[in-house]
Amino acid sequence: MSIEAKFKKLGTDNAPGQEVRQSAAGLEALMRGAPLEGRPVDFSHGDVDAHEPTPGAFDLFSAGVMSGGVQAYTEYRGDLGIRDLLAPRLAAFTGAPVDARDGLIITPGTQGALFLAVAATVARGDKVAIVQPDYFANRKLVEFFEGEMVPVQLDYVSADETRAGLDLTGLEDAFKAGARVFLFSNPNNPAGVVYSAEEIGQIAALAARYGATVIADQLYSRLRYAGASYTHLRAEAAVDAENVVTIMGPSKTESLSGYRLGVAFGSRAIIARMEKLQAIVSLRAAGYSQAVLRGWFDEAPGWMEDRIARHQAIRDELLRVLRGCEGVFARTPQAGSYLFPRLPKLAVTPAEFVKILRLQAGVVVTPGTEFSPHTADSVRLNFSQDHEAAVAAAQRIVALVERYRA
Amino acid sequence: MSIEAKFKKLGTDNAPGQEVRQSAAGLEALMRGAPLEGRPVDFSHGDVDAHEPTPGAFDLFSAGVMSGGVQAYTEYRGDLGIRDLLAPRLAAFTGAPVDARDGLIITPGTQGALFLAVAATVARGDKVAIVQPDYFANRKLVEFFEGEMVPVQLDYVSADETRAGLDLTGLEDAFKAGARVFLFSNPNNPAGVVYSAEEIGQIAALAARYGATVIADQLYSRLRYAGASYTHLRAEAAVDAENVVTIMGPSKTESLSGYRLGVAFGSRAIIARMEKLQAIVSLRAAGYSQAVLRGWFDEAPGWMEDRIARHQAIRDELLRVLRGCEGVFARTPQAGSYLFPRLPKLAVTPAEFVKILRLQAGVVVTPGTEFSPHTADSVRLNFSQDHEAAVAAAQRIVALVERYRA
Repeated sequence: MSIEAKFKKLGTDNAPGQEVRQSAAGLEALMRGAPLEGRPVDFSHGDVDAHEPTPGAFDLFSAGVMSGGVQAYTEYRGDLGIRDLLAPRLAAFTGAPVDARDGLIITPGTQGALFLAVAATVARGDKVAIVQPDYFANRKLVEFFEGEMVPVQLDYVSADETRAGLDLTGLEDAFKAGARVFLFSNPNNPAGVVYSAEEIGQIAALAARYGATVIADQLYSRLRYAGASYTHLRAEAAVDAENVVTIMGPSKTESLSGYRLGVAFGSRAIIARMEKLQAIVSLRAAGYSQAVLRGWFDEAPGWMEDRIARHQAIRDELLRVLRGCEGVFARTPQAGSYLFPRLPKLAVTPAEFVKILRLQAGVVVTPGTEFSPHTADSVRLNFSQDHEAAVAAAQRIVALVERYRA
Repeated sequence: MSIEAKFKKLGTDNAPGQEVRQSAAGLEALMRGAPLEGRPVDFSHGDVDAHEPTPGAFDLFSAGVMSGGVQAYTEYRGDLGIRDLLAPRLAAFTGAPVDARDGLIITPGTQGALFLAVAATVARGDKVAIVQPDYFANRKLVEFFEGEMVPVQLDYVSADETRAGLDLTGLEDAFKAGARVFLFSNPNNPAGVVYSAEEIGQIAALAARYGATVIADQLYSRLRYAGASYTHLRAEAAVDAENVVTIMGPSKTESLSGYRLGVAFGSRAIIARMEKLQAIVSLRAAGYSQAVLRGWFDEAPGWMEDRIARHQAIRDELLRVLRGCEGVFARTPQAGSYLFPRLPKLAVTPAEFVKILRLQAGVVVTPGTEFSPHTADSVRLNFSQDHEAAVAAAQRIVALVERYRA
């Protein structure tokens, strides 16, 4: 594949944060009515001013800077002292052992962990099972390494509330067709649904049967709403621990994205490869930033409960606003801060509507096509926003749905 | 290529900072005499405690944190306000225009810039001209993307002091053989030599003649010693600006490695590809860290001169110590903080001697084989260290050379 062809597939025009590089040419002719007033809301990512970084994070960073060279130049997989702190916390959270020395790597964000994990498991031509819809980078990573994506559907729309809706037959078919890597996010990005204990059990059993490696992106697994139960794949009896890599990070729930931190843990062989690659990708997660992880999973009592309660309140009010619009379907997110409403048929294309939302309502959302070719009629909202501003923005979305209804 | 084969080539056992993961098994039998006392010195990278980060860097970081979400979530290519500040400074330094909007990307370290630049220019099977010796990651990057390395020799040993010693005929042969990318560091890592105006002019002319893209790693180009003149390839009249990417960063001279910052600038088309890839590699250089770049190329008057003078003093004393040992050859570095002495024939292998240096003398150096298959008899020292400790460590190196002399 030529370098031009390879990069042509890597479009980022609709990626969160990149809207500033979009052109609005040709939209004027389609627009109806006047702009809607209101505080702009960028639902493409969380608002860390509304939900601030974990208290103490900056002090830990400062202490890292003060400690000087030892914190600036860590092993590529991250400072051992910090890995020693994190491993038991991650083990307690996920219910299975974590080897601080050989089974854990600190990365530049969870994106860094995902990149390294896919690079360390997918060679050219390898088949990789990918959920539709799921985080858009999953597909792009597989394509970048010239793997072949085998889609597995997640029917979060029809599934009852007790399960995410994974097509388990589809997953087995993917394995039967030769896929030896399965990559998925739990809670699902964009739908916010959590895989049930039964679904995780089945994934574990299928992975074991076919000898597949599973990369579980659990970035949002700490922010769980009332009534949600969560099952960690890596703690399943059926799994071979060497065939699972779990990815997490403090960028979302903890609002620490500005420090670019993530972790991957599990399989020693895969972590070892990931570190070898990290050495030529970016050497290490920023040394001083790594120090911030000392406070991760060690937040003050009540801090997480409060953060969850605030997000649950925003979620519930957004759901009321969106469901008040005829033809909108929105499943209740069980964890994380993504809402993925399906919109009714409009007189403009979904891509046009997303741009119109930005230009006429000051509302940035991520188009559904980023997550699956089958979800063009949906948009993703990261509702980790100022409560009032988010509700007002959702009302503007509804107003424009009415205005552009087909 | 299988994933195992691909990663087997990516060895990092001798990479700087990774010595903690080495085994010393089997060395005991080879060792002669008692350990040498002295403060341990890790010459594999600079000592940012001895040469501290640029004053004000931490304050800029703090201000970045205070500014919140806008600094945490920048464009993938980095904050535009910061790019607007940097572009004219980089243009003034290199003598050619820099397009802040489309021709500049902020990356996680210069390593991040190198990775993205190679990924954006080298497809499977592409031939890439690589200097021997040069920064070890260059070769590994080409191999990772399954390019084919075409070595071009740098005869820094025999060349007179007015030139680095590049085999220009060899470079043209590489282009004739089909290489369309040339990747090199200037000043050269590990030899510390600077390419002459004539060499840079010839590289520019050859690149233009063969339509080749040049990636110039100028990481150390600010730390120049008395008498060194420096020519920026990107400012050469012969070059097509769209075929050159220049890489720099504040990790070395400015001791800001703990923030993980680098930049690449030049070709708009290549920078655009690099950003697309950054979106799936690590999203962006840590947002808060980017703020530190506001102070880059804006240091207090005299700060750089002082930093250069201190390094020149260390360089000169290390050269005296090393040249006092019979059979050691060490060319005078013209810029940067790398010394690459060639050692006389020893009774142990070069790899063993490097381990012995660590175990018996508390001195970490990088083996010459990391930079070229032809420089196994050399070791690289990053002499950005505490002056006295570095001199004492060099004396221990000399003492062990005597002890193990063949």
